[in-house]
Amino acid sequence: MTEYRERSMMARAVQLAWRGRYSTHPNPRVGCVIARGDTILGEGWHERAGEAHAEARALSQAGAAARGATAYITLEPCSHFGRTPPCARALIDAGISRVFAATQDPNPSVSGRGVEMLREAGIRVSVGLLADEAAQLNPGFMKRMNTGRPWVRLKMAASLDGRTAMASGESQWITGDEARRDVQRLRAVSDAILTGVGTVLADNPSLTVRREELGDIGRATEPSRQPLRVIADRDARTPPAATILRGGKVHVFCASSTIDTAPAQDLAALGIRLKGVAWKDNGVDVAELLDSLGALGINELLVEAGPTLAGTFISENLVDELWLYQAPVFLGSTGRPTAHLPLETMAEKVEWTVKDRRQVGEDQRLILVRR
Amino acid sequence: MTEYRERSMMARAVQLAWRGRYSTHPNPRVGCVIARGDTILGEGWHERAGEAHAEARALSQAGAAARGATAYITLEPCSHFGRTPPCARALIDAGISRVFAATQDPNPSVSGRGVEMLREAGIRVSVGLLADEAAQLNPGFMKRMNTGRPWVRLKMAASLDGRTAMASGESQWITGDEARRDVQRLRAVSDAILTGVGTVLADNPSLTVRREELGDIGRATEPSRQPLRVIADRDARTPPAATILRGGKVHVFCASSTIDTAPAQDLAALGIRLKGVAWKDNGVDVAELLDSLGALGINELLVEAGPTLAGTFISENLVDELWLYQAPVFLGSTGRPTAHLPLETMAEKVEWTVKDRRQVGEDQRLILVRR
Repeated sequence: MTEYRERSMMARAVQLAWRGRYSTHPNPRVGCVIARGDTILGEGWHERAGEAHAEARALSQAGAAARGATAYITLEPCSHFGRTPPCARALIDAGISRVFAATQDPNPSVSGRGVEMLREAGIRVSVGLLADEAAQLNPGFMKRMNTGRPWVRLKMAASLDGRTAMASGESQWITGDEARRDVQRLRAVSDAILTGVGTVLADNPSLTVRREELGDIGRATEPSRQPLRVIADRDARTPPAATILRGGKVHVFCASSTIDTAPAQDLAALGIRLKGVAWKDNGVDVAELLDSLGALGINELLVEAGPTLAGTFISENLVDELWLYQAPVFLGSTGRPTAHLPLETMAEKVEWTVKDRRQVGEDQRLILVRR
Repeated sequence: MTEYRERSMMARAVQLAWRGRYSTHPNPRVGCVIARGDTILGEGWHERAGEAHAEARALSQAGAAARGATAYITLEPCSHFGRTPPCARALIDAGISRVFAATQDPNPSVSGRGVEMLREAGIRVSVGLLADEAAQLNPGFMKRMNTGRPWVRLKMAASLDGRTAMASGESQWITGDEARRDVQRLRAVSDAILTGVGTVLADNPSLTVRREELGDIGRATEPSRQPLRVIADRDARTPPAATILRGGKVHVFCASSTIDTAPAQDLAALGIRLKGVAWKDNGVDVAELLDSLGALGINELLVEAGPTLAGTFISENLVDELWLYQAPVFLGSTGRPTAHLPLETMAEKVEWTVKDRRQVGEDQRLILVRR
């Protein structure tokens, strides 16, 4: 059994890593503590891609005192020169004598190399302390490294009778202020937000993070950019005047045959990236879409879409987490369904495990994963 | 401010009263404590109509020690000869010197008379201690005495996407064992259970209390009878072989013009009580139905009905409590709606206050009241 002290130090490193929740993408969130016994000598976390890694910051704070000390890191230190020098080398050079890493680097091409480099330098290395807690820091980075696809969060706001809008499409506002602020935080941790052209045409949303609605972000680093906005739009029907096209990068995924059409070229002329993907009867080929987004370095994807696209994600079992905001209202039996999901028998029902359930203002937020 | 001791004693009386939750109907649940200082001399609760009242039981336990003692009673003691002698007289004869009553008798024709009788005998009487807690013992009795109608609980079992059944009608089982046991307890506290003939024809339910599924009822008195089962059935289509017609009393509310038809007379021949009421476009005249049930002495009505009847109760704002059992599943967009409730605009949405929210096995139970 690992010592209480060691668990405490790693817990602190995890806590530090969370400070990068709005800012590290596409890099992972990483925290590091340098300590001798119960005394913390240096703390660091990764803030932004291109800037210092967690280990470098913690070592810099510890200075010469790092010699002979222990490093607690939420992720295996890197072994390669990227935009910054390898952290494994820095730990060795600083004279660190013991390393705890919560998780291995999930990137198959470098996994284990950092640990190896440390061990070759005579440093005792243990991997796995608070591994679950550390993995939760980076569900998207972990999944993308393993599968090439982003972590998919599907967000829905519905009534207790399972409606997301009136038959007319009227839907503002089902949930309250606090739930909408919570969605701002969800957007801010996301690398990309996906919607369908139907939502763009009906609601003309911006799908940006509005900093003033994020509220107090505590000691987290300020969001450094808007998430990439992604529109599934077979025929490039997104109007050039659509609000979503302003305020940051936008990708439009259309049918391959659409790319050369006038509407698509009009969008391209605005600087919108267009990519042709396959379409099926029920809409975009979501699996191919996810592969493309993974290739773009998207770790965490938030889907804020209408019932059709939402239903496709659910029926193809491509949702990692369903974030369901439930308002204590009935919108009536003529309202729009939560998701387009035609099922015939009880045996086909979609079963969820409730991972988290909490009150958000007057509403309830459920985080659901497929059973 | 009332003394801690007095609040504790009344809380004990409320606790005792709850022991009659399955058995006192149509009488109210009442508890009584006879005490001197911190010493409880006698305790009683009403168990069944026709049997001793709470005060009589507590006085009997206290015996001669009651002289000069204080009585804590959840409801104003009765002043009239009913099936038992008046409790106010018994308290006087026992030499009680001080009485706390949590609530006045809500029956307008006797309210205040018990208190008056006690005061005339020189007893100091205070009314209102833990009044809310005591009122919750008898929402139906209180409401019926004030309005002539029962307390209406609408029970629904739905998925997170707001469906109560598949399009085919298949609905067994949406919720889990624990939720179904909870519904048994809900039935057992109810004086009557209302359903529509559609549900009878589709599901052939019994709507009885199955004692073995009630589980441990603690120190509560055993249920003494089945709740009255009530069917809204305009044309007397309930099949004489229907399961619901067995296992206790059944009332069929049909259209007045149906009473003399052969199907109605076939039911009457089985001992089923038929009553003609008005029908409107969207079904039975629920207000008239509630008046009739109130006149029958029904305090607490449980509605277990299909979407049409449920929708009528909601749209006519006749639901006192909506008990919604939510299973962590999606049944899909082709499933049956929670309630037939055609609404056009967000402004018409039905807003609920969550009075209670708790986990029941894998499911969530919400008790909702109209905002």
